[in-house]
Amino acid sequence: MTEYIEPSQKHLAFIEEYLQVLEKEFKPHNLYAPILYILRQPGKKIRFNLTIKACELFGGLSEDAVYSALATEVFHNFTLIHDDVMDDASTRRNQPTVHTHWDLNTAILSGDAMLILAYEILLKQKSSAIVPILEHFTEAARVVCEGQQLDIDFEDLPVVQMDSYIQMITKKTAALIAGGMYIGALSAGASPEQANLLHEFGINLGIAFQIRDDMLDCYGERQKIGKIKGGDILQGKKTILYIRTWFSLPEEEQKRFESLYLGHSENKVDKVMKYFNQVDVKSYAIEQEQKYFDKALLALKKIEVPESRKLDLFHYANNLMGRDH
Amino acid sequence: MTEYIEPSQKHLAFIEEYLQVLEKEFKPHNLYAPILYILRQPGKKIRFNLTIKACELFGGLSEDAVYSALATEVFHNFTLIHDDVMDDASTRRNQPTVHTHWDLNTAILSGDAMLILAYEILLKQKSSAIVPILEHFTEAARVVCEGQQLDIDFEDLPVVQMDSYIQMITKKTAALIAGGMYIGALSAGASPEQANLLHEFGINLGIAFQIRDDMLDCYGERQKIGKIKGGDILQGKKTILYIRTWFSLPEEEQKRFESLYLGHSENKVDKVMKYFNQVDVKSYAIEQEQKYFDKALLALKKIEVPESRKLDLFHYANNLMGRDH
Repeated sequence: MTEYIEPSQKHLAFIEEYLQVLEKEFKPHNLYAPILYILRQPGKKIRFNLTIKACELFGGLSEDAVYSALATEVFHNFTLIHDDVMDDASTRRNQPTVHTHWDLNTAILSGDAMLILAYEILLKQKSSAIVPILEHFTEAARVVCEGQQLDIDFEDLPVVQMDSYIQMITKKTAALIAGGMYIGALSAGASPEQANLLHEFGINLGIAFQIRDDMLDCYGERQKIGKIKGGDILQGKKTILYIRTWFSLPEEEQKRFESLYLGHSENKVDKVMKYFNQVDVKSYAIEQEQKYFDKALLALKKIEVPESRKLDLFHYANNLMGRDH
Repeated sequence: MTEYIEPSQKHLAFIEEYLQVLEKEFKPHNLYAPILYILRQPGKKIRFNLTIKACELFGGLSEDAVYSALATEVFHNFTLIHDDVMDDASTRRNQPTVHTHWDLNTAILSGDAMLILAYEILLKQKSSAIVPILEHFTEAARVVCEGQQLDIDFEDLPVVQMDSYIQMITKKTAALIAGGMYIGALSAGASPEQANLLHEFGINLGIAFQIRDDMLDCYGERQKIGKIKGGDILQGKKTILYIRTWFSLPEEEQKRFESLYLGHSENKVDKVMKYFNQVDVKSYAIEQEQKYFDKALLALKKIEVPESRKLDLFHYANNLMGRDH
């Protein structure tokens, strides 16, 4: 089943080749070491894969989109470095985060360099649509920052409406997945209309993916998540689980739940999960995940390419939803 | 004399118009407020002006390069936000720095968004050379990060060679000035050869400019600098003044000077300046500034445009060197 999740050997070799150039030719070492560190961590490279598959969907060769795919992946990893600083997260993919392994200044500066590298990589893409590709990539990149800001803004609120949450994850998570797919489609010469349908697919897949990510934070296996179990709970993040539970509780319970969730009591994760289970929030989240996944498939259905070409993307997305890490 | 330093009314209006769009149409507020804050601070906008003048030198209209100029200026201000975090600087342009006025996370995230906005602005530039413009901008941006890394690396060393210092400021300061001028030249349709000569002008002007900046840190007037007097000394920065003084002292004095400079004793700035004055480091710095300025003019001389067109840039650069803030 995992063959749909990991990048192909050919693409892993392409990425490693780029990293070797970075390692050998780019100086000073202290700037690039953290970039190599995070990019060499084993990861699913979902954004890379989806960008490639978007290109292939429209009949392009994967070579037409490898730089777009790598740029999207590098941009994503840049956001991880800076987000981990903002969240003060110590572990990711079972390894120390960059600011933990090095320090704050290294995380800031290497992250900045990585964002610039994403553009440098994208500019290697030979395509007659290079300017629209750059424009769309830039739009997605900015929207990701807006999503991260909304996430931070939510920290100061006791609770947010479910549609605000969906808007936040659309920007923070789905925009880049969809943006990568959009530029992958353009790399294959897709029309803006067709690329927009694939963008819609990516947005809904991204939302479903983030809902699953929220779930895995406390219902996944620690080793597989590669982060601390219940990390979102410990940080008082406004996840779908928290929001749904809050709105499902009687008014007098909401305050108690809120104080628990935003506080730092002993066994906080267990206590919060008791509330979660009490309202069966997991079932709700699975339902919502399915709802957005179905929306994604509906968009895919509308795309005007031979049905047989949609199979690979369909399988990949399906496996992504079945993931337990 | 200052008419050559400040941007023209027309360009100030152009910048303000952009900022008003940013203010009204871009959300969430908390992400963009720090960007508006730093971009609305009165500043010399040297990089903006030089990019415009580079375009005009080759017979272009300033309209051909306004987005290139603004992108360069916005990128520069992004580096200020992140550098101020890394240096833990509390004041810039006589106002609290972004992480002081808001907080660390705001400074990181708004800085990131600003770097992306620089690309968004640059992509508005209508030019047949847009891809080379983007490539060169990206190259300069990456080199600026490398320069900042070298500056950080120097913190752990007692002293560095003068040529390492020159390399560092070439990357950290001169690369963006020269990069802006290069893309300004391309915007006017200059050939890569001619643009390279202007790049050489910009590199040497940038070096001279940074040497002057090092000098102003302790020989400038506090109010005019807009930062704490002797800030570099307090931070133990490896400036031209420190390096030259260190190498001018007898061996037995070097250790004492080094300990003083890297330590945090009372009246540190005054004590350090006594050493500076003892070896007349100010004269040396002025000499070096002049040397690089002359190199810049030599490059300008080689550029194949009517001499009369060089006058404006010559005056501007000349006034820049005469600046006392």
